[in-house]
Amino acid sequence: MSEDEAIALYDILGSQAHVVMLCEGGIISRNEAAGILAALEGLKGVGTDGDTGAEDIHEYIEAAVIKKAGMQSGGKMHTARSRNDQVALDMRMKIRDDINTLCACLADTVDSLLSLAERHQRSIMPLYTHLQQAQAGTLSHYLLAQADVLLRDMDRLHSVYGRINKSPLGAGPVGGTSIRIDRRRTAELLGFDGLVENSIDATSSRDFAAEYVAALAVLMTGLSRLSEDLVIWSSSEFSFIELSDESASPSSIMPQKKNPDMLELTRAKASEVIGNLVTVLASTKGLATGYGRDLQQIKSRVWSSSDAATHAVILVGSALTGMTVNEEGMQRAARGGHLVALDVAEKMVLQGMPFRLAHRVTGLLVQKAVALKKDLSGLSLQEIREAVDGTGADPQAILQIAASTTVSSSLEDRISEGSSGFAEQKRMIQDRLGRVKVHQEEVRRRSDHVAGALADLSSAVSQLVG
Amino acid sequence: MSEDEAIALYDILGSQAHVVMLCEGGIISRNEAAGILAALEGLKGVGTDGDTGAEDIHEYIEAAVIKKAGMQSGGKMHTARSRNDQVALDMRMKIRDDINTLCACLADTVDSLLSLAERHQRSIMPLYTHLQQAQAGTLSHYLLAQADVLLRDMDRLHSVYGRINKSPLGAGPVGGTSIRIDRRRTAELLGFDGLVENSIDATSSRDFAAEYVAALAVLMTGLSRLSEDLVIWSSSEFSFIELSDESASPSSIMPQKKNPDMLELTRAKASEVIGNLVTVLASTKGLATGYGRDLQQIKSRVWSSSDAATHAVILVGSALTGMTVNEEGMQRAARGGHLVALDVAEKMVLQGMPFRLAHRVTGLLVQKAVALKKDLSGLSLQEIREAVDGTGADPQAILQIAASTTVSSSLEDRISEGSSGFAEQKRMIQDRLGRVKVHQEEVRRRSDHVAGALADLSSAVSQLVG
Amino acid sequence: MSEDEAIALYDILGSQAHVVMLCEGGIISRNEAAGILAALEGLKGVGTDGDTGAEDIHEYIEAAVIKKAGMQSGGKMHTARSRNDQVALDMRMKIRDDINTLCACLADTVDSLLSLAERHQRSIMPLYTHLQQAQAGTLSHYLLAQADVLLRDMDRLHSVYGRINKSPLGAGPVGGTSIRIDRRRTAELLGFDGLVENSIDATSSRDFAAEYVAALAVLMTGLSRLSEDLVIWSSSEFSFIELSDESASPSSIMPQKKNPDMLELTRAKASEVIGNLVTVLASTKGLATGYGRDLQQIKSRVWSSSDAATHAVILVGSALTGMTVNEEGMQRAARGGHLVALDVAEKMVLQGMPFRLAHRVTGLLVQKAVALKKDLSGLSLQEIREAVDGTGADPQAILQIAASTTVSSSLEDRISEGSSGFAEQKRMIQDRLGRVKVHQEEVRRRSDHVAGALADLSSAVSQLVG
Amino acid sequence: MSEDEAIALYDILGSQAHVVMLCEGGIISRNEAAGILAALEGLKGVGTDGDTGAEDIHEYIEAAVIKKAGMQSGGKMHTARSRNDQVALDMRMKIRDDINTLCACLADTVDSLLSLAERHQRSIMPLYTHLQQAQAGTLSHYLLAQADVLLRDMDRLHSVYGRINKSPLGAGPVGGTSIRIDRRRTAELLGFDGLVENSIDATSSRDFAAEYVAALAVLMTGLSRLSEDLVIWSSSEFSFIELSDESASPSSIMPQKKNPDMLELTRAKASEVIGNLVTVLASTKGLATGYGRDLQQIKSRVWSSSDAATHAVILVGSALTGMTVNEEGMQRAARGGHLVALDVAEKMVLQGMPFRLAHRVTGLLVQKAVALKKDLSGLSLQEIREAVDGTGADPQAILQIAASTTVSSSLEDRISEGSSGFAEQKRMIQDRLGRVKVHQEEVRRRSDHVAGALADLSSAVSQLVG
Repeated sequence: MSEDEAIALYDILGSQAHVVMLCEGGIISRNEAAGILAALEGLKGVGTDGDTGAEDIHEYIEAAVIKKAGMQSGGKMHTARSRNDQVALDMRMKIRDDINTLCACLADTVDSLLSLAERHQRSIMPLYTHLQQAQAGTLSHYLLAQADVLLRDMDRLHSVYGRINKSPLGAGPVGGTSIRIDRRRTAELLGFDGLVENSIDATSSRDFAAEYVAALAVLMTGLSRLSEDLVIWSSSEFSFIELSDESASPSSIMPQKKNPDMLELTRAKASEVIGNLVTVLASTKGLATGYGRDLQQIKSRVWSSSDAATHAVILVGSALTGMTVNEEGMQRAARGGHLVALDVAEKMVLQGMPFRLAHRVTGLLVQKAVALKKDLSGLSLQEIREAVDGTGADPQAILQIAASTTVSSSLEDRISEGSSGFAEQKRMIQDRLGRVKVHQEEVRRRSDHVAGALADLSSAVSQLVG
Repeated sequence: MSEDEAIALYDILGSQAHVVMLCEGGIISRNEAAGILAALEGLKGVGTDGDTGAEDIHEYIEAAVIKKAGMQSGGKMHTARSRNDQVALDMRMKIRDDINTLCACLADTVDSLLSLAERHQRSIMPLYTHLQQAQAGTLSHYLLAQADVLLRDMDRLHSVYGRINKSPLGAGPVGGTSIRIDRRRTAELLGFDGLVENSIDATSSRDFAAEYVAALAVLMTGLSRLSEDLVIWSSSEFSFIELSDESASPSSIMPQKKNPDMLELTRAKASEVIGNLVTVLASTKGLATGYGRDLQQIKSRVWSSSDAATHAVILVGSALTGMTVNEEGMQRAARGGHLVALDVAEKMVLQGMPFRLAHRVTGLLVQKAVALKKDLSGLSLQEIREAVDGTGADPQAILQIAASTTVSSSLEDRISEGSSGFAEQKRMIQDRLGRVKVHQEEVRRRSDHVAGALADLSSAVSQLVG
Repeated sequence: MSEDEAIALYDILGSQAHVVMLCEGGIISRNEAAGILAALEGLKGVGTDGDTGAEDIHEYIEAAVIKKAGMQSGGKMHTARSRNDQVALDMRMKIRDDINTLCACLADTVDSLLSLAERHQRSIMPLYTHLQQAQAGTLSHYLLAQADVLLRDMDRLHSVYGRINKSPLGAGPVGGTSIRIDRRRTAELLGFDGLVENSIDATSSRDFAAEYVAALAVLMTGLSRLSEDLVIWSSSEFSFIELSDESASPSSIMPQKKNPDMLELTRAKASEVIGNLVTVLASTKGLATGYGRDLQQIKSRVWSSSDAATHAVILVGSALTGMTVNEEGMQRAARGGHLVALDVAEKMVLQGMPFRLAHRVTGLLVQKAVALKKDLSGLSLQEIREAVDGTGADPQAILQIAASTTVSSSLEDRISEGSSGFAEQKRMIQDRLGRVKVHQEEVRRRSDHVAGALADLSSAVSQLVG
Repeated sequence: MSEDEAIALYDILGSQAHVVMLCEGGIISRNEAAGILAALEGLKGVGTDGDTGAEDIHEYIEAAVIKKAGMQSGGKMHTARSRNDQVALDMRMKIRDDINTLCACLADTVDSLLSLAERHQRSIMPLYTHLQQAQAGTLSHYLLAQADVLLRDMDRLHSVYGRINKSPLGAGPVGGTSIRIDRRRTAELLGFDGLVENSIDATSSRDFAAEYVAALAVLMTGLSRLSEDLVIWSSSEFSFIELSDESASPSSIMPQKKNPDMLELTRAKASEVIGNLVTVLASTKGLATGYGRDLQQIKSRVWSSSDAATHAVILVGSALTGMTVNEEGMQRAARGGHLVALDVAEKMVLQGMPFRLAHRVTGLLVQKAVALKKDLSGLSLQEIREAVDGTGADPQAILQIAASTTVSSSLEDRISEGSSGFAEQKRMIQDRLGRVKVHQEEVRRRSDHVAGALADLSSAVSQLVG
């Protein structure tokens, strides 16, 4: 029962839509409809008291309606439907709302990433592969990568929404009904874009739940990587950022030690949603077709995944907004690791040296520089000559390149689409501001469509109740 | 290396596109391009010999090109790119092809389901909930439910395709390049619909692989349920179907015993793909951003998931096509279980009795019938009177209903959209024949687009090679 | 906090043991100890009120103790320990109790299996491979197989118990303490068999939780198979058993239809525990050493796994006890499927025919019998001659074998250790009755050891509190 | 078939033992036995050629034996057994060997950890919680924690071994046999410690595979944490270690950049084994009892898990042995983070201050020190007075404590069992050297027992073959 509290309102709305349709179709009388609808209206917002003995929320609500409206009316509420289509309906209505809520939060977090990126277009930092410093980049470039990941999550959830937002209502226990119901009308009253038509499919399939939780698992896995980065960056060895007190738990004995609890939780919640996904898939794997009680167990795993994802998106957004960036520290790290090596090699390439050879020559230079504890730009002509001896490279040309290549100059030069170059940052931020707006409008359109339908349903109910 | 054989051709094509672009942009000379392209062309279809000592396929191919075309030309093949964008490119190209192959197989299997459904529109069988007989239905209704599940899988794979079919080529190790490459041009030459723009995202993200394997896991879970149904139906206790020898392994000692091996394998393969999905998600969970060797491990799990799904779809299709349906046995089962109970109750409802009450009254009738080992239609007026005593129901009216309700009449009467009714079968088959055609055209459009681009690339290569 | 309610009592006991030891070692005074212990005693059984603002149960309890006993005493409760060792302690104490409870339930369910087996030593039924009838057997043989699976689960949980029942108390945040505590003494007071010695390991490792949930996942997977069998057996097509009303939900409209809800739930709960295991493993995968908040998330998955397993074991036990066995139906099925084929072949083998050949000859006989719709025993000499023509087998000898081999005679003849033979049933039942008793004593010994230690602790507390 | 190559030898050995027993029991003649055994001996070490058309290795070997020894003898090889017990036998024999191999590698890696610990008993480093520096410790303390984790893995694998090392041979397809075989004799000849007695259980259960893969998943999860630590420590920001070239892939362009590929692979392989575990569990979840083809799919996941674990243990061992420790860098980090805070607080506790208060006072001191960019030991009396004002603490006493507490002195003082204290390091290393020796002997005992039995089998075979 406790898992069903989350869907009580959806159950009531679904029943109202069904009853309005039954009345419109002349299957039940206006009076009967009015009695049921009034009773249902009275149940909204009222919690179930634990002692009812009802097996689930559907039974509970029907019993309450029959008690209030009498058997002659109330006993007709479930005409031409069954618990099996009801539970599928309620799940779809809840997931639909959960997606819209989550997408709104995602848009906010993308907004936070973009604002932060705007401020840090020229905050130089090392970019990593294998957690080893690999190239110089900008913080904005990193933040924009995370924004692109989340924009894809929004896109993915939008696809999922399209398949979930179909009505199973009226499918009956498994084989449909001989009563002339209008399933398209109830779908319309509840804001669905069509039917899950086949009554076996409508009551028995849970691919919609699985693909939703899968989308959340993908989303959470992405967030866990962002969280891991921030956890590492807030270690004292990295010291790239300092988390706000909201995102961290300070130690009482070492107040300067800020445990990144919220980010660790996000990371852990990714594992929880992956586990939930396994539960959902394994529950339905090898299950004979037709509703089975196994399907009941899926619900709590879906609800907890929705909660985990929504909280994580908010937590990560607030960690980003609240953190202090140590620009100087980042920049220092970027300057220290010979991170212009590739940029130096590319200048040789532009002078005609094969890429693979330029790589090798630069490798020799870096080796020399490391041995001498110098920067590449500090190597003398003699040192360069020694380093590249035997490669056929021109030491003089290399000297010029090495001496003129800095982390900053490299980021001016970096021009490929999507690169860390300064110009690309500006362009990408503008572009993504546009994209997130499109997504936000899409979310609003979806939410408004549901809200509009439910408002119409409410009017229809009011009119009948009188 | 062995996992890389699967992507050798994609790696060559990607390199050709890149080199054509480098040449068009004046970054390498026509001569250099010709040398590289000819060497690459020569590698097509040639297996790697194990003894090269190359760490991966990318290194192997580059070394072979340099050996053939010389360092001066061959050394330029990798200008302004890296293994990190290459591996992402190759995976995307392979998954793209895998989706198209799989969708073509799915369409065939849906076709098989629809043909079978056409033949069995009036093959009456029990429909089950909880593996208990619940309502009478038709075999076509069941088959159409399975077709709808697979059509959604095709739809889902189409969404995934849209996000996968983006080019990461030219992203570099992580931060892009200062060389004036044209990433949109290589995307076009390889048949992509745009870029994974941000170079950190392009090299580091694997959400595309995760969502692909997730779609396969959902697909396989659906197939495992169909397989379970067929396994149960082919037990001697059910005897609804007999599998063909292709889908079963007969026992040598009991030749009449046909072990449904192919369906059991399908069921097991669902578990394999679920496990693969866990591997993919857990590998990236909590991973610091930037390419890491962890990502390498994902490949084999994606390939094996593609294989498992494609084989399973084919195996299930051929099990369906090859099996013999025991129509008589199915019908006998449907007649034996009081499966008209709900249809009887609905007739009472049509006469004004509340649904909940009609349920209860019918329950009493069934109880009586079970006790007397009779069908509902065989109950006498007196027996009915005894059964419904105290409910207020009119025994005479009930007698008329019970006597006139058969499994066949019920399926004539069943009219709700998506129900088991005979009329609905006809309508749904026609409708799904149209839907699968739309999907097939979509798959063809996608495949043609890729093939067309690669043909253009091939022309461009020929022209340059001369 | 809500997940922590489950460990409140353990937290109090752990603190009491620690304080007793601190006092015994002269680290705090007797008065201080008395104050703390009395305050802790007062917290037993008192729920936390939600509004305390405490982050977790450890903080809550300490705050309550300080409030009651004053800072001068209460502030010493946490001397030389930390939340990091406390949370590991509480988990270990709870899992320890959960294992003992679960094992007691397992022993009861094994008892039920053995009683049922005793009653059904001669209840003949088909044994299945691939859900196809394969050999004749007895219901007891099946039940004993399930008992053996559960006995292994008990054995496995016993191994796990040995590794869990070690005390991490006193490990400190990660590196231990300079205060002369006696960790062995607190371990003794709490009934542990030794220490998790290394303080980094003690606070950071969660292999104990993972292996516990893994053992539960293995257990649940076994129960899911038993459940599946019973679900299939209770279908009307099999009709081998009828579930009691406690284990099934009857349909209101078809009272003879009993939905096997409790068994379906058990099957689903197996998936839930598998998902939980993934969560636990994935949460710790790739986690840097040292306590992290990720570890917090594991707790709720462990608790829910304990609950799921204990309930499932009880539900399955009560399904077995309550079900009605249709002996006649089982026997009829066993007689109908030429299930003596292997027994017939083995008689040929005993007459010197190679096993593989006997298989082939019997296959031909079965084929003939199937074609003629006869039993093997009903084949005439002429029919046998036709069937085995060309194999070199002696039709007369075969006639004698076939005519004299019945399902019952075969089960008299089946003599190999662990086989379905009647004699083996008797022997195995006696043997397993002995084994389960040994397990029960082991569980009692474990429980008594813990209870004894806690009683001693309680005395020590009483003495100090005075 | 390809998955079966791994078990060909086990299949041959199993058949030899079975045939020796059949001969000893007079079920087949000495001549027949000799023919079969010679044929089997001839198949050892000979690969299967792909074109045999055999469905699996069991069929292949039997066919080869019949071809060589003739039907009259060879056809008797499978007397009183079946493929269903064979496949279970082969899996158990292989896993048994895999466990022994793995445990030997684990012992070597523990040895490496202990040797390294011996060298680094006084190598001071920060210990982390939440990836934040928490307390000062020693490298040996960390290494010993990892050794303890691996010792538990060995212990766990030993328990698993006990349940796996039971013979299912002779169980038949599912119900046993009427031929008077001696299952205990074949068990003895193959080095098993008893039987999986019940023939349904012996052929149908796969809990032994699941618990083995679960033990590997727990092991790998532990190794992934060690790997993560080393990856982080080898970042340039931490610079605690430098990996050898064997464990890392240097970048050609930045030779100082060493990508920790082997450790990343280990981390990824943990995810692979977790996924394999899901496959194994989900494959058997809800499967009807009795051999089914689903069980076939489990094999490859078990083999790949064995491989992954063994390689990972070796890779990690060699990473540890090969790495260079930057003792100075570690120590510098340990000195910089006010890591003596807890040690300072404990000295106040020893002077009678309540622990919670000492925590708070120390927190104020640290705050002051951070603000002044001083060490705790550098705070003047006046500064201390300001810091602790209002707490009731005695500034003079604190000054003495703070001034006298260094990282080194703290590690001299740390005395609790299992702590980072210098004395504890020495003790624990000695103790663990003893423990690993016990484990090594246990592994040797297990391996010797199997080898001895197989040598006896080989003698028996030689004697019969003559």
